[in-house]
Amino acid sequence: MADGSGPLVIIGGHEDKEGKKRILREIAERVKGGKLVIATVASHEPEGYFDAYRKAFADLGTDNLVELYVHERGETLEHETSAIFEGAAGIFFTGGDQLRISSQIGDTPVEKMVREIHRRGGVVAGTSAGASVMSETMLVKGSSQESHRIGDLHMAPGLGLVRDVIIDQHFAERGRFGRLLGAVAQNPRVLGIGIDEDTAIVVEGARFRVIGAGAVYIVDGTRVTSSNIAEASADRTLSIHDVTVHVLSDGDVFDLDRRRPLRPA
Amino acid sequence: MADGSGPLVIIGGHEDKEGKKRILREIAERVKGGKLVIATVASHEPEGYFDAYRKAFADLGTDNLVELYVHERGETLEHETSAIFEGAAGIFFTGGDQLRISSQIGDTPVEKMVREIHRRGGVVAGTSAGASVMSETMLVKGSSQESHRIGDLHMAPGLGLVRDVIIDQHFAERGRFGRLLGAVAQNPRVLGIGIDEDTAIVVEGARFRVIGAGAVYIVDGTRVTSSNIAEASADRTLSIHDVTVHVLSDGDVFDLDRRRPLRPA
Repeated sequence: MADGSGPLVIIGGHEDKEGKKRILREIAERVKGGKLVIATVASHEPEGYFDAYRKAFADLGTDNLVELYVHERGETLEHETSAIFEGAAGIFFTGGDQLRISSQIGDTPVEKMVREIHRRGGVVAGTSAGASVMSETMLVKGSSQESHRIGDLHMAPGLGLVRDVIIDQHFAERGRFGRLLGAVAQNPRVLGIGIDEDTAIVVEGARFRVIGAGAVYIVDGTRVTSSNIAEASADRTLSIHDVTVHVLSDGDVFDLDRRRPLRPA
Repeated sequence: MADGSGPLVIIGGHEDKEGKKRILREIAERVKGGKLVIATVASHEPEGYFDAYRKAFADLGTDNLVELYVHERGETLEHETSAIFEGAAGIFFTGGDQLRISSQIGDTPVEKMVREIHRRGGVVAGTSAGASVMSETMLVKGSSQESHRIGDLHMAPGLGLVRDVIIDQHFAERGRFGRLLGAVAQNPRVLGIGIDEDTAIVVEGARFRVIGAGAVYIVDGTRVTSSNIAEASADRTLSIHDVTVHVLSDGDVFDLDRRRPLRPA
């Protein structure tokens, strides 16, 4: 579940920026014309990201956008950086490399300011790498489009805005079911959440709702009876028995505490 | 389960033809130097398939190979066609289009001769399209690498050598988890079996064993509590709750009657 009181909007990448903009509209409605920080920190070459979002948000009543970029970790201590957060109603982490977000802002004043937005009810959104970094332990690297080999997964500590979950993105599009299973197999305490492109979960407290065009896959290892994750050699293909999977789509609601989808109304 | 007494070797496509040839070797060992019919019926342009398998089987002690191709359904009635099956120890369906196999040989003397091989203990093998066609109802078309949309699946009657299952191939490689879920959602009576490339299941009676490099995914809808498959419009993304998934790899054994993986020895 989420720690703070504000909503988390966690997007599987490639959210629509030109059509109905379902997901960006959701963010705009929650920011209510307030200041939205666009954090392009995940990118090694951030040029263009900010302009793309400025254009996309322009006709959604959200024109108070300001960019946050950090070339080096030391900049997170500077006054100019904290000034960006003054009066912010929300923050949006764009795509790139999730390790760049965690290594540049993890345990810095910037991370504290992000948590403060969340605590006092503001929006914290993230797409692609910006989605992965929301989880406590985040997926960094692992094969797409092949079944999981045991040694083939890299994880790292994320920002941990949602506890007890591991989030993957571009999910169906990049064939990532195998790697999310691999992550859950390592410790079924974490619930796997795979989010398709142009699809998001909006987390509020212990529940989330799905919005957008694709699906959200829940991989629950609670009832796993057998797996070879700790026994086999690194290039061995994963075996795992009795995984529970839920596929959710637009409008579906999920209870993170009980690990149950709510029946449609 | 399989009807006949012979083994079915059902391959997810792209089986190794140059290295250790795990899967082809399994077939060769069961054919025991007898005659193996290579059925290239699935292909619209069968040139090259037969030669590739002749080369691949040459050093496995299986040099008695004969090709079966059917340009038109009427040829299945000809004496030359039935002569191909005389004394055959096994048949191997190569890849292409599963609808070409079912439409050209379904309910013909050729299908009867295939069943006869199976009945009297011979090997029936198939890769890719040749794998799909083994099931009672076969997947013909459906999106890969995106989540399943309800109207987006084409199925057709297969040869039905294995009952109560639906088989998909190139599984992790082409991101087909969504479409197999969609097929199972339509009637959870069928068990979904998704087979990776260079991976096979060897079905004998009510059990199968996994061989090869990748994984085999079992999608069991028995305990599904909710799905929108019958309610939503054709372009709606599938929702389905409480699917049980097993991932199996080399050496794992599965009981089709009980729908349970056997614990590793």
